[in-house]
Amino acid sequence: MARVVRNIARAERAVVDGLAAAGVATVHEAQGRIGLLASRLRPIYPGARIAGSAVTISAPPGDNWMVHVAIEQLQDGDILVLAPTSPCEDGYFGDLLATSAMARGCRGLVIDAGVRDVRDLTAMGFPVWSKAIYAQGTVKATLGSVNVPVVCAGAGVDLGDVIVADDDGVCVVKRADAAAVLEKARAREANEEAKRKRLAAGELGLDIYDMRGKLEAMGLKYE
Amino acid sequence: MARVVRNIARAERAVVDGLAAAGVATVHEAQGRIGLLASRLRPIYPGARIAGSAVTISAPPGDNWMVHVAIEQLQDGDILVLAPTSPCEDGYFGDLLATSAMARGCRGLVIDAGVRDVRDLTAMGFPVWSKAIYAQGTVKATLGSVNVPVVCAGAGVDLGDVIVADDDGVCVVKRADAAAVLEKARAREANEEAKRKRLAAGELGLDIYDMRGKLEAMGLKYE
Amino acid sequence: MARVVRNIARAERAVVDGLAAAGVATVHEAQGRIGLLASRLRPIYPGARIAGSAVTISAPPGDNWMVHVAIEQLQDGDILVLAPTSPCEDGYFGDLLATSAMARGCRGLVIDAGVRDVRDLTAMGFPVWSKAIYAQGTVKATLGSVNVPVVCAGAGVDLGDVIVADDDGVCVVKRADAAAVLEKARAREANEEAKRKRLAAGELGLDIYDMRGKLEAMGLKYE
Amino acid sequence: MARVVRNIARAERAVVDGLAAAGVATVHEAQGRIGLLASRLRPIYPGARIAGSAVTISAPPGDNWMVHVAIEQLQDGDILVLAPTSPCEDGYFGDLLATSAMARGCRGLVIDAGVRDVRDLTAMGFPVWSKAIYAQGTVKATLGSVNVPVVCAGAGVDLGDVIVADDDGVCVVKRADAAAVLEKARAREANEEAKRKRLAAGELGLDIYDMRGKLEAMGLKYE
Amino acid sequence: MARVVRNIARAERAVVDGLAAAGVATVHEAQGRIGLLASRLRPIYPGARIAGSAVTISAPPGDNWMVHVAIEQLQDGDILVLAPTSPCEDGYFGDLLATSAMARGCRGLVIDAGVRDVRDLTAMGFPVWSKAIYAQGTVKATLGSVNVPVVCAGAGVDLGDVIVADDDGVCVVKRADAAAVLEKARAREANEEAKRKRLAAGELGLDIYDMRGKLEAMGLKYE
Amino acid sequence: MARVVRNIARAERAVVDGLAAAGVATVHEAQGRIGLLASRLRPIYPGARIAGSAVTISAPPGDNWMVHVAIEQLQDGDILVLAPTSPCEDGYFGDLLATSAMARGCRGLVIDAGVRDVRDLTAMGFPVWSKAIYAQGTVKATLGSVNVPVVCAGAGVDLGDVIVADDDGVCVVKRADAAAVLEKARAREANEEAKRKRLAAGELGLDIYDMRGKLEAMGLKYE
Repeated sequence: MARVVRNIARAERAVVDGLAAAGVATVHEAQGRIGLLASRLRPIYPGARIAGSAVTISAPPGDNWMVHVAIEQLQDGDILVLAPTSPCEDGYFGDLLATSAMARGCRGLVIDAGVRDVRDLTAMGFPVWSKAIYAQGTVKATLGSVNVPVVCAGAGVDLGDVIVADDDGVCVVKRADAAAVLEKARAREANEEAKRKRLAAGELGLDIYDMRGKLEAMGLKYE
Repeated sequence: MARVVRNIARAERAVVDGLAAAGVATVHEAQGRIGLLASRLRPIYPGARIAGSAVTISAPPGDNWMVHVAIEQLQDGDILVLAPTSPCEDGYFGDLLATSAMARGCRGLVIDAGVRDVRDLTAMGFPVWSKAIYAQGTVKATLGSVNVPVVCAGAGVDLGDVIVADDDGVCVVKRADAAAVLEKARAREANEEAKRKRLAAGELGLDIYDMRGKLEAMGLKYE
Repeated sequence: MARVVRNIARAERAVVDGLAAAGVATVHEAQGRIGLLASRLRPIYPGARIAGSAVTISAPPGDNWMVHVAIEQLQDGDILVLAPTSPCEDGYFGDLLATSAMARGCRGLVIDAGVRDVRDLTAMGFPVWSKAIYAQGTVKATLGSVNVPVVCAGAGVDLGDVIVADDDGVCVVKRADAAAVLEKARAREANEEAKRKRLAAGELGLDIYDMRGKLEAMGLKYE
Repeated sequence: MARVVRNIARAERAVVDGLAAAGVATVHEAQGRIGLLASRLRPIYPGARIAGSAVTISAPPGDNWMVHVAIEQLQDGDILVLAPTSPCEDGYFGDLLATSAMARGCRGLVIDAGVRDVRDLTAMGFPVWSKAIYAQGTVKATLGSVNVPVVCAGAGVDLGDVIVADDDGVCVVKRADAAAVLEKARAREANEEAKRKRLAAGELGLDIYDMRGKLEAMGLKYE
Repeated sequence: MARVVRNIARAERAVVDGLAAAGVATVHEAQGRIGLLASRLRPIYPGARIAGSAVTISAPPGDNWMVHVAIEQLQDGDILVLAPTSPCEDGYFGDLLATSAMARGCRGLVIDAGVRDVRDLTAMGFPVWSKAIYAQGTVKATLGSVNVPVVCAGAGVDLGDVIVADDDGVCVVKRADAAAVLEKARAREANEEAKRKRLAAGELGLDIYDMRGKLEAMGLKYE
Repeated sequence: MARVVRNIARAERAVVDGLAAAGVATVHEAQGRIGLLASRLRPIYPGARIAGSAVTISAPPGDNWMVHVAIEQLQDGDILVLAPTSPCEDGYFGDLLATSAMARGCRGLVIDAGVRDVRDLTAMGFPVWSKAIYAQGTVKATLGSVNVPVVCAGAGVDLGDVIVADDDGVCVVKRADAAAVLEKARAREANEEAKRKRLAAGELGLDIYDMRGKLEAMGLKYE
């Protein structure tokens, strides 16, 4: 059952980078409001906004052995995604693993468990979205798998899917949909820009979106 | 049942601003240790300290339609207070709604649910106290009410009550009590300043508050 | 039952300061992966890294009387550790108590409950690791104890034990073990530094730690 | 601030008993889907279904003194409703207090905190809906209030409101609305009975409620 | 995006029933310790042990419209599996829907949200595994999908997968693997029966599984 | 670090059995309101009331190897107490281990993690107090310790301490204190019996405990 898939398809770099620029909320909307990971995943420091191809890890609770295996599979522009096989908040990952991952071009870590050495990770500029910050050490005793489909924080992630992460959380985009989602995200941004100006000028959403009639029809009463 | 109250009484601006300056902990103490919202509401960025008159929203889970309705009711100096009708952490509010609310003088949002676009909101200086940061989009399909009494994060909030919010959380002051609470808050601050100097000089609370006798009488033993 | 132990043994200052420099994750590993407090304790602001001798407080829920008693027992370099006798998130501690504690050389507070005035505490540079930030006031009506063994956030803490706290959380080191743990922590740091360089140069943990054979022997398959 | 209101108005007994027979889900629907207490309140044993007039208690965390005060205010058919002033799970109530409350005709307890002696309470047939089962003892040191408006588990409860509780949880009905809500609840039950028969016979809600057209209009696709 | 898949493949009835008899813990082990739904899903009454083919529902928070759509898709022996699109504990399902589902041969409901009318459901013998028991009503305003792949309580569920549920929780078995998993489950049971007898007779697992040597080799010390 | 202590002192059987008869709430009060384990530990079925000597297990997350080691250390009348070294809800224990433990006279299990096969355990009459019911399997790969001091669910437990558990939860009594605590528990029960009769006859706690004067002195107002 324990296996490592070596060759994974990845989305085009330009598409990935475009999704990073769009950010989580826009990408999530652009693809039809799907793909968000649970809100328990929070960034260890504010301000990071990244996207990359998922190298996935299915790991036993309290055992980070497979992280070492996964790092060998990293290519420039990838993001590690770790899903424990049962709920766990141990610190699977710290500054040494981050050093190794960065040396291979890794852009960050998404983990439904804990992380440690966050002061060092912040200083290094290695962003992590995690369920907990916890120094609890892990062992290297039991196998897991690398680059298999996982459910991470309530969302299905396949190897090579695009992960987008920023201060709003983490979103996954199916690799095959990435280019189309980017196009929709950009259209959405253009559309929002126009609305932002009107709203800033004091126009109301009630009028811009023409909601008054429908609200009245549904029975809203003003007193 | 779905209704919007248009005209709400508000506390005097000077009183509201005075309460902001006093901050949550002092206001909470000054009014007899009541009115705190639950600690699950946290600011999306540190350092904001605001007060304003509550424009309340009772909204269905995952439906932000009433936010648009509420924004029309905002006056300069108001704060939006959103209570979902059942537990929810969806992102009801983002940078477009904040742009619209700011254009009407809104000072911030208190929401027992989620918020998104927090990077933009931080850059705009629009403070939010929320239960979650979550990009999950909402629909506009079901009515709620605006400016009705709500229970938000465990505290009753009436339209026009004064909301005070800072890094310690959120507190509500009944509109009718606002001036009296401000007076007590200022008295408390003056009193605290004197104590702070004595404590900083090394005097003990045990002596300043004359606690030793009572502790001994109740049976505290020193070994 | 309510008692205060006045004279507690403390670890050597140089050892304590050495443990602070090593930080929580390293100290935790150096002493065999024990002594961590639960991850629900988080710092009120990032960047603090301290160590000190524990002055412990066992306090009833919602009653901070014993904090005043404990402050008298503080010596330069100590850390207050408060464990409520049942789960509580009230704000036992704020800027006045911090002023008093700092005047006696206290380095910080670890509390499995709430804290308030966090803006002031941040400005004063008084670090706190707490379960909650909550302005809820407390009473002074019921006795507790000072400098007795407590269980704080799941870890046993004896009076005079060394507390280490940073962005990764909080760890306790038995006083009698402190010097030995510091030695191991330093050895660990030296060892890590060498590995960090190799990892930064692109070597893999799989090779540095010689894992490939064992992984294969246990049945890991590459595809 | 600490006060006891002696004379409270109560709903008619027949109305109260009618609401008990209708149960929580029906009453909640009949009054427009309002008034539910949070789902964290659970019955200590299955099968109880009660209604009664609320005698409310606002109590400090870990202090059950006011329960004794409240028991004197009980009349036959009342229900005790305890809201702690900050989150707490201590065991405020056990078999002795239940004996006393039953002697005064009390029908049960709703408490956003803990309860103990649940084996005895079960044997006595005294139902409790609580946030926790926890033997932690409480003190009698600080005042609270009896028969004041409280927020209990997220719902506002006024003295004399009708409390309905069963295996689905707890619902509050404003005293003034109780008779009207009962009428609607009975109409709802009659209506449901007819539907139940049709559904049991295999008819579909899609047809009974005539949903197919609207679903199609909104864009639902069958594959 | 909103769609209903009408024709789904199902596992053989005899295989499904065999998995029910094996129970969750055995099935989970037999298929390599995968497929468990999160422990937050609990049965509304003890003692039920079922298996069936999944008819899946992806529903918006607080909106149970799609349950009506799903019921039309039920065949004898099916189990409804509802995953809300964001976290929700509203009561999507009660006795009327259960009556309808039972009329179509449905064996139970697995829902990562709330359920109500649990007294009636218990009396009817319609088992439910849910995250919450909560009477909160839902609307019928927004579309979702039926018989699409969902992630429910952290596990991926495809239409037609076999769901096994008992007092230990809920497990999903891929439809294509169901027969093979059943075979392994039966082998496991046979093997366990033999061990049970030896253990009941006082033999130790240390001896039956021959663990002593390995424990000693790894360094376990007896004092 | 991994070790097993073979010979542990135990309290007298008659004392242990007396504590079981007194139950958790009474024992907790009798020993001065200390020693309760956190309320997250709940019995898997109602009605069990046991006491026994603690055989403790410190186990890694998701690894139940040490349970086998601990079972060999069991004597008639013991209770297993398992504390994971970091938070975990995996199912460490099921019917086979219970069969083995019962064969050695074990009275039950207290575990700050998960348990499975609860239907079988209930049928066997083997009581468990656990944090979760979860079928997740565990491995046997990493050592822990048996009969060392542990912190279990927030309470310190030493080998040979007396564990008392019933529907109210779990309490630990220091072995050396067990006889004295039993005496106090019995005195308390006798005293409670007298009060119970008076309360059942309608006397008020306000009068029995002579509270009226103190309440008035502290400022309680009747309206």
